[in-house]
Amino acid sequence: MESTLAYIKDNQTKFINQLIELLKIPSVSADPAYTKDVRKTAELLAKEFNDLGLDEVAVIDTAGHPIVYAEKIIDPNLPTVLVYGHYDVQPADPIDLWTSGPFEPVIKKTEIHPEGAIFARGACDDKGQMYMHVKAVEAMIATNTLACNVKLMIEGEEEVGSANLETFIRGHKEKLAADVILVSDTGMISLDTPSITTGLRGLSYVEVEVTGPNRDLHSGLYGGAVANPINILCKMIASLHDENNHITIPEFYDKVVDLSDEERAEMAKAPYSEAAYKKALDIKATYGEKGYSTNERGSIRPTLDVNGIWGGYTGEGAKTVIASKAYAKISMRLVPHQSPEEITAIFQKHFEAIAPESVTVKVTPHHGGQPSVTEIDSIEYEAASNALAESFGKRPIPVRSGGSIPIVAMFEQVLGLKTILLGFGLDSDAIHSPNEHYGIKNFNKGIETIPLFYKHYAALKK
Amino acid sequence: MESTLAYIKDNQTKFINQLIELLKIPSVSADPAYTKDVRKTAELLAKEFNDLGLDEVAVIDTAGHPIVYAEKIIDPNLPTVLVYGHYDVQPADPIDLWTSGPFEPVIKKTEIHPEGAIFARGACDDKGQMYMHVKAVEAMIATNTLACNVKLMIEGEEEVGSANLETFIRGHKEKLAADVILVSDTGMISLDTPSITTGLRGLSYVEVEVTGPNRDLHSGLYGGAVANPINILCKMIASLHDENNHITIPEFYDKVVDLSDEERAEMAKAPYSEAAYKKALDIKATYGEKGYSTNERGSIRPTLDVNGIWGGYTGEGAKTVIASKAYAKISMRLVPHQSPEEITAIFQKHFEAIAPESVTVKVTPHHGGQPSVTEIDSIEYEAASNALAESFGKRPIPVRSGGSIPIVAMFEQVLGLKTILLGFGLDSDAIHSPNEHYGIKNFNKGIETIPLFYKHYAALKK
Repeated sequence: MESTLAYIKDNQTKFINQLIELLKIPSVSADPAYTKDVRKTAELLAKEFNDLGLDEVAVIDTAGHPIVYAEKIIDPNLPTVLVYGHYDVQPADPIDLWTSGPFEPVIKKTEIHPEGAIFARGACDDKGQMYMHVKAVEAMIATNTLACNVKLMIEGEEEVGSANLETFIRGHKEKLAADVILVSDTGMISLDTPSITTGLRGLSYVEVEVTGPNRDLHSGLYGGAVANPINILCKMIASLHDENNHITIPEFYDKVVDLSDEERAEMAKAPYSEAAYKKALDIKATYGEKGYSTNERGSIRPTLDVNGIWGGYTGEGAKTVIASKAYAKISMRLVPHQSPEEITAIFQKHFEAIAPESVTVKVTPHHGGQPSVTEIDSIEYEAASNALAESFGKRPIPVRSGGSIPIVAMFEQVLGLKTILLGFGLDSDAIHSPNEHYGIKNFNKGIETIPLFYKHYAALKK
Repeated sequence: MESTLAYIKDNQTKFINQLIELLKIPSVSADPAYTKDVRKTAELLAKEFNDLGLDEVAVIDTAGHPIVYAEKIIDPNLPTVLVYGHYDVQPADPIDLWTSGPFEPVIKKTEIHPEGAIFARGACDDKGQMYMHVKAVEAMIATNTLACNVKLMIEGEEEVGSANLETFIRGHKEKLAADVILVSDTGMISLDTPSITTGLRGLSYVEVEVTGPNRDLHSGLYGGAVANPINILCKMIASLHDENNHITIPEFYDKVVDLSDEERAEMAKAPYSEAAYKKALDIKATYGEKGYSTNERGSIRPTLDVNGIWGGYTGEGAKTVIASKAYAKISMRLVPHQSPEEITAIFQKHFEAIAPESVTVKVTPHHGGQPSVTEIDSIEYEAASNALAESFGKRPIPVRSGGSIPIVAMFEQVLGLKTILLGFGLDSDAIHSPNEHYGIKNFNKGIETIPLFYKHYAALKK
């Protein structure tokens, strides 16, 4: 592997500059205004795949944004790694909180990243992490050290629920045939404490609309006499948690399996400082479900969060109006055995049931995702663990993440393949937030570790 | 008065066309983007006052938007009527709910207005009603029937709390010396049931900001473990009403005086149809404080309404974010003896007190206004009552309105003058809402009634 590592070292600057070009394109999948840019990003990737000498390179249209595919089959007898990543990014707003343009990548040093980090939307999630695989494959091909066959499937709709990915996969099962799926779209505890994500929360995401009077009303003439949709929406949302911050929706917890004391004790070993956590977020106190630690609240417990709310007059100054409508976007993070479809259905039923007669309520489901768990006694996990141990000089810790990558459960269901979440991001990377960034060192470490996974996986599969 | 009425009839079309020109200028006082248009409107009025041959015409600058003044003193021995009105308007949003441009006035027939109504922002509140006085004065001057001296004071900041009016009035007490103040900025029960507003609610208007983490967070990684400012804001707002829709802020009701059974019985005589009320607003049920009728809830009881709320992701699609901040604009309508300053202070104290340790709260007071009541056994009221009786052939009913015209209490305090609220609007005019309109017949009736007030007032003052 020396030649591979040498190639990676020699090309670090080029790799960073190429990533910067990729980050300049605002591939925001949620906003139709960026549709052209999303495709432009897909085409840039396809061009690079061709330049790398990969085969079957294609930008494949879907009902939404395209999927980029490429592969390199060096020997049918070798195991095949299917790499999944996404080139689309979250919306950048609130823009005014960015210290530099979200699509004008710059490298800045930070306390956690003395070697510098790339600041841009998508720097980590997931352009930066996805691109590590492209560069690792480049290095293995250039140095003739590719230990497995490789297939790359990079989609453009992860941030909007991968609406068309399942259709694509069901339609291309043979093309996608592989032994394992490798994904870098998660984080690790720190550069000193490598970790592998073994559990993911699922997601149910809905939009609600509360309608009161048929038009906006003067709050003086009507105030007090008609239901104010904003007050009602607040009341309904508030009622979704009880005084212990348990979710009050009937049947919500029915399928939630509590972890054993052993498992919770194991989790509690992960390094955690309440003081550092609060300092990083500039909060006086953490907040959450009674009876669980901050770590547990953020990973093994289901949640209900309002992601956005709006209604009435939100401009400058004062407007004495009672709005006709109020809206909220609400998402629930789910834990193993909770089904997004079921949870969305019981949320809708409950939310409609608690609406007073004086308003009407509409619940529109957005996307959902299954939760998932990875066994740590598998060849796949062992190969990943060996790779990290070799590049970091330390065995990784298995961790349950609070995030959701719905497609992991879908991959297993449709392709029958296990997914290894080999992530190199950090909690402090501010993904989905202003000033998202990704450490140069994390990026380089990732590129170095990926070929090691191929090596160990090939060896273990023999 | 025949000549005056004849002049008004002969010039109806001209009057309407002139009002339409006035309505074309978007004099939105709340939004700095329209500052130039606000001044343009003031200058158009001043030009007309000059054309009418009024004296002392001036566009007087304030710290905010200008005040337009003009007067006609025909005989120092005659009583003087000080007319107050405002030429600024509410913001037009939500624009997409207008069936025609808010600043492109058009006349349309409606069920209630078979003769047609002018649709435009400000058509009724208050350009249309204010302009009736300009046209009535024009008619009285043209026909030499002015029965009182008249002073016109038209401001441009009523919709943002008349922030600079009191300073102006305190600085011009002599110039504004008069016997009564006449204002048309309220409504009447219907064209068949004239009424005079004898009570107004006060107003306390605040903006609240709830801050959680120092940046937007990924709802998967942090969801459940940190206080979500939007959920917290909803919880805090919901807690401001109890299960009977009484307001829960300590001391809020301390100074509220309950009406006597007699007064409530009197109020109950005003024509009201619950079925018609619900049909007009397209609601299944009314909603409000237990123990009070819809009429009472909307006029003699204090309220707390959220006029606007925003936070997090409100764009298209789904964004799994926990916002750093959430905001709301909250207004409270006050009844006699409640002071806006006191209520704002106890709101602020309470709202800060109920915030959990995991967030910080900022409360910013906007404008406030004193409630007021007019005695019905006064010469001023009698003159107005006689005027309406003469033009409508029916004695008006005194009504308590839920709206606020804070300056009425201020006028009495600073100038020692009573205000007569001679309004010709209807609840269905949709003021402060999309598709605001004002009936042509209401406009004409108002112009005809105003000279009769001057006549009866002069007679009663002899």
